[in-house]
Amino acid sequence: MKPLQIVFLGTAASVPTRDRNLSSIALKYSGNWLLFDCPEGTQRQMMATNVSYMKIKYVFISHFHGDHFLGLPGLLATMSMHGREETLTIFGPKGVEDYIKKAVELSMLQINFQINCVQIKSGRILKEDEYEIKAFKLNHDVPCFGFVFKEEDKLGEFKRDKVIKLGIPEGPLWRKLQKGENIIYGEKQIRPEDVLDLSKAKKGKKISIVFDTRANYSYIEAIKESDILIHEASFTEELKKRAIETKHSTALEAANIAKEAKVRKLYLFHISSRYKDPLEIENEAKKMFANSYVAKDLLKIEIL
Amino acid sequence: MKPLQIVFLGTAASVPTRDRNLSSIALKYSGNWLLFDCPEGTQRQMMATNVSYMKIKYVFISHFHGDHFLGLPGLLATMSMHGREETLTIFGPKGVEDYIKKAVELSMLQINFQINCVQIKSGRILKEDEYEIKAFKLNHDVPCFGFVFKEEDKLGEFKRDKVIKLGIPEGPLWRKLQKGENIIYGEKQIRPEDVLDLSKAKKGKKISIVFDTRANYSYIEAIKESDILIHEASFTEELKKRAIETKHSTALEAANIAKEAKVRKLYLFHISSRYKDPLEIENEAKKMFANSYVAKDLLKIEIL
Repeated sequence: MKPLQIVFLGTAASVPTRDRNLSSIALKYSGNWLLFDCPEGTQRQMMATNVSYMKIKYVFISHFHGDHFLGLPGLLATMSMHGREETLTIFGPKGVEDYIKKAVELSMLQINFQINCVQIKSGRILKEDEYEIKAFKLNHDVPCFGFVFKEEDKLGEFKRDKVIKLGIPEGPLWRKLQKGENIIYGEKQIRPEDVLDLSKAKKGKKISIVFDTRANYSYIEAIKESDILIHEASFTEELKKRAIETKHSTALEAANIAKEAKVRKLYLFHISSRYKDPLEIENEAKKMFANSYVAKDLLKIEIL
Repeated sequence: MKPLQIVFLGTAASVPTRDRNLSSIALKYSGNWLLFDCPEGTQRQMMATNVSYMKIKYVFISHFHGDHFLGLPGLLATMSMHGREETLTIFGPKGVEDYIKKAVELSMLQINFQINCVQIKSGRILKEDEYEIKAFKLNHDVPCFGFVFKEEDKLGEFKRDKVIKLGIPEGPLWRKLQKGENIIYGEKQIRPEDVLDLSKAKKGKKISIVFDTRANYSYIEAIKESDILIHEASFTEELKKRAIETKHSTALEAANIAKEAKVRKLYLFHISSRYKDPLEIENEAKKMFANSYVAKDLLKIEIL
């Protein structure tokens, strides 16, 4: 299992404040950064932390409201000016290619690396060697998605010495065994249980990010038993009417989702600028789900 | 004469840094703010200072490169969310209306106040009660303008008591006299020199802002004898070749312009992120024009 890092680059809803930039999350795994939403000001938030914009491999845009993606043209320009050559893949709802094209054209940017745009649909949108990203529909006033980062489960501790002793060369065969598949090597069948200490099985970490939405049970299944749920909480219950009108969630509603989904820990973000004291939000959530916290900008969480 | 305030909201060229946001200048006169360029992050820079985004009356965009106007959609959204009702006038090069329209559309913004777009041409673009704004062409790779804020000259100190004694009602007649025009009041001609202490004449303040350009003499006349010249200095002489290629200025060139235009004080901004120590830029300029300074972010200048 590799260390996983989450950085809250911004935690404000709609309008930034002195203390909170617009909402954006960076997640580091295996040396690469994944960026979830990229509002205005995101690149400077990165500069104030250890998030390397040159090492962003994937960008996920939840929806195309300005306060969730207007930092993208500037970020692309900065990457290009600093000599980026690697392809960047940008995931977004329907129209993603057109949005990115228009944003780049409007800014008169010259981008010297390849950008691939991928339209998000519900379900798995990315599979990498040791993790996958799934998207699920949210309930906002334009098509909007939430995301699950799921690390691969480990069936057991890999007995490296034994595998070497068996003469199996490092590479695809090792991966197969680690994933629980039988292999044939030198006319001999080798079973995963021969080379895995099954007593040391470990579930992969699961991180769920819920952007702009009316909290509801439609996405409970997707985020179930997350180690960390990051959920929008634009308002408190006092402004529930406004939450309903604008298709956002209250802190209590987000906490209820956390409870129903049996997550381990809840971080609230996307906080309306009217809340000067984050405890207003936090305390409301804690009533429903004790392990609730309001994230602040540049908060870094390391999960080993 | 009213106090005038200048705030450097950003001082970086092309790419922001930890310490410098992209270049933008706010100028306050008579309770209103004028904003010169609005790159990404400008609204948060305002929040870190006393610049009130709700009191911005005019926005001037020098040119339509992303790093000079991509903070506009977010700023407009914030103004709208905070209940702005007053019209905002945005000046920009040819196509300004189309750029603003596209930026607003792209962000899916709902702006609840009137935006007037005015295409900049060389010469006077705005005349207010006590000041005017002139624009002048710069030499960049797209149409780009610099700006002069010029306070009205005062012909002399207005003898208020005397005017009241003469029974002239406060209002347009006072303004005419202050401006040096004769008036007829009660069949009697009153000359400005009757009501002005001409020994106390005072020149209005002149502030010039030069955005992205190859420094050259074409705009010397426009900025002549400015109290303050704010000039881009992307590079030092060592990178003059790059300055020529990218149509920017070196610190020495900007200082030469300041000297030739006989300005009182030079502030350099729009500094490339490669310069970690602003003294590199400042010292080069000082060699040519002693009263040269590199502006830092949030630097505030008050002129009484």
